[in-house]
Amino acid sequence: MTSHLDRLDNDRIRGFLAAQKSDGPVLVVDSEIVRGNYAKFARALPDTRVFYAVKANPAPEILALLAELGSCFDCASVAEIDMALATGVSPDRISFGNTIKKERDVAAAHARGVRLFAVDCREEVEKIERAAPGARVFCRILADGAGAEWPLSRKFGCVPEMAADVLDHAQARGLVAYGVSFHVGSQQNNVAAWDSALASAAQIFRDCAERGIALSMVNLGGGFPTRYLKDIPAVDAYGASIFESLKAHFGNRIPETIIEPGRGMVGDAGVIEAEVVLVSKKSDDADEIRWVYLDIGKFGGLAETMDEAIRYPIRTAHDGEATTPCVLAGPTCDSADVMYEKTPYPLPISLSIGDKVLIEACGAYTTTYAAVAFNGFLPLASHVI
Amino acid sequence: MTSHLDRLDNDRIRGFLAAQKSDGPVLVVDSEIVRGNYAKFARALPDTRVFYAVKANPAPEILALLAELGSCFDCASVAEIDMALATGVSPDRISFGNTIKKERDVAAAHARGVRLFAVDCREEVEKIERAAPGARVFCRILADGAGAEWPLSRKFGCVPEMAADVLDHAQARGLVAYGVSFHVGSQQNNVAAWDSALASAAQIFRDCAERGIALSMVNLGGGFPTRYLKDIPAVDAYGASIFESLKAHFGNRIPETIIEPGRGMVGDAGVIEAEVVLVSKKSDDADEIRWVYLDIGKFGGLAETMDEAIRYPIRTAHDGEATTPCVLAGPTCDSADVMYEKTPYPLPISLSIGDKVLIEACGAYTTTYAAVAFNGFLPLASHVI
Repeated sequence: MTSHLDRLDNDRIRGFLAAQKSDGPVLVVDSEIVRGNYAKFARALPDTRVFYAVKANPAPEILALLAELGSCFDCASVAEIDMALATGVSPDRISFGNTIKKERDVAAAHARGVRLFAVDCREEVEKIERAAPGARVFCRILADGAGAEWPLSRKFGCVPEMAADVLDHAQARGLVAYGVSFHVGSQQNNVAAWDSALASAAQIFRDCAERGIALSMVNLGGGFPTRYLKDIPAVDAYGASIFESLKAHFGNRIPETIIEPGRGMVGDAGVIEAEVVLVSKKSDDADEIRWVYLDIGKFGGLAETMDEAIRYPIRTAHDGEATTPCVLAGPTCDSADVMYEKTPYPLPISLSIGDKVLIEACGAYTTTYAAVAFNGFLPLASHVI
Repeated sequence: MTSHLDRLDNDRIRGFLAAQKSDGPVLVVDSEIVRGNYAKFARALPDTRVFYAVKANPAPEILALLAELGSCFDCASVAEIDMALATGVSPDRISFGNTIKKERDVAAAHARGVRLFAVDCREEVEKIERAAPGARVFCRILADGAGAEWPLSRKFGCVPEMAADVLDHAQARGLVAYGVSFHVGSQQNNVAAWDSALASAAQIFRDCAERGIALSMVNLGGGFPTRYLKDIPAVDAYGASIFESLKAHFGNRIPETIIEPGRGMVGDAGVIEAEVVLVSKKSDDADEIRWVYLDIGKFGGLAETMDEAIRYPIRTAHDGEATTPCVLAGPTCDSADVMYEKTPYPLPISLSIGDKVLIEACGAYTTTYAAVAFNGFLPLASHVI
């Protein structure tokens, strides 16, 4: 009899799941895939330093592996800085990349030796001046995020026209105006999406140079996608496109660059095994849609199904058999805990209560997004192998 | 100088917050308000048993208080059943109200003595038959949720026309077809919202009677609101309206009834103290909107700001001074972590970085909705006083 595990290409994860028996949903991350992804980024952008976005998956084994491979770390909080430092890396391999920081957290990072901070306004510059005197700052600018699948709001960054003033403000206060950052939007499928932001960055370099400030670095952010249901461009294609844009806008004075992959580094390394709790219909009408309820949902690790943004590949033992569109929902008593309803998900008609399913490409933005104890359900279990 | 705490009407919470110093956001729940709310429900619906929706706030102190007051408990999972049992109540005061249950969880509940289960389809009935033979089941029907502020999907319940078949299926399999349940939608502002569902319930009672099945109970669900920014009807008005509908549809054969208040029981009992991390603008344009970033957001306890559904009252030391519309966002590096943007929130112009604010009516659906460690941020701290 075919098992859901037969659908897995990944031998290591298959073997792990076959050997263990879990009562609830479980994420398994294959560290060898992470290793391979790091190598791809290093090859695609050979002159660019990698700052892994710790928030994507802060599992200690992943951080340790990336530290060993030479990665730096983009951290969103002091807790993430401590996780990065726990790998043994020196603090000069850490960036405090959150533009929204309590001054006492800036001080805590500074006390730990961190000297690179993101800002997007004068007010944040002044916190850094007081709590991390002399540190390097880069100014985040708004990018439009067109082509990205995860919504990018205006939450981070200022308009490009304001950046030179913010960096000037930093330099005048004894900080090192170090560079410019932006983010082209998560799960960015357009390899050319970096171009217009790089044009803005080059203009900010020129504006700052006119004021006597020599910027050094462009932080290209993240946005590198994971393959969900649709094919995505190869990392090499991103590297080539970004390098062309750098040449076009900076000429022969290409700055130091860094990237902050999160999803692109770990997304495709993880698989969640979940269970079908219920398959039912709301009425006896023949054309009534089928509801499939899993033991994982929006509050148990699949938060990125918000607004049906990320559509995960789902494998079952019955793949290849006839399918029917299904509403896919989680196990909690919250009516918002529905993953796919506007665009129902085709699943095998033979899928039954108690069947296990595999949700692929779940390595990023799952474990730490799970709620503490929503409806009494445990947070997502996780193993790195 | 005015403190944000001067804005609090609640002396007990004010005293507690004044005496403690927290580094991050903290929820304080006043158990005396919960006690008062229970009394209001008991008075408004004197013949109705209260099954507190544990998921709203499962703090042990709250469960213990409600157990002492005579409440029963509506549980979404075995973990919640164990929390309810930990208060010392007997299992006949517990309902397993989730329509989506693993069969082994039904068995676990049955082993603990629970004998009352929700179902909304034949498949779920068959799990109960196997794992909890002889138990009482009630069938949840769909209700339209008009007038509710928190979105109600079709996730739970079947069409009323299917309910008699589901209950018949239960009775035929040795279970006790016990009644009908529905939910009129969370934060329901219309006191008459129960009427059409009660009409459906009465029809199901008649349909079952024709088949020789005597139903006993109508579970009126939750939906009772908490006062956020807008005034809400008093609990008495809900009680009176529900009683009128019961009389209209059931005549002189009014069934046993239960309610499952969650938000209505604990929502107004809790206040979150949070901190302003940053106030900034995205450009130097005079009419550029102001962004206010707090140290709590959508992933740290304020999940119900999803789609800007719930608008919490916010108090500051500067209340009464001139205000300006602000985008309100959380502290994480996630662009989706924005609470109010489509409808900006008016906040005092003088509100500054480092100021504390009070977010009121946060007693329900906050602590357990907080993410495990999103971006490294701790889950919401909570105290019941």
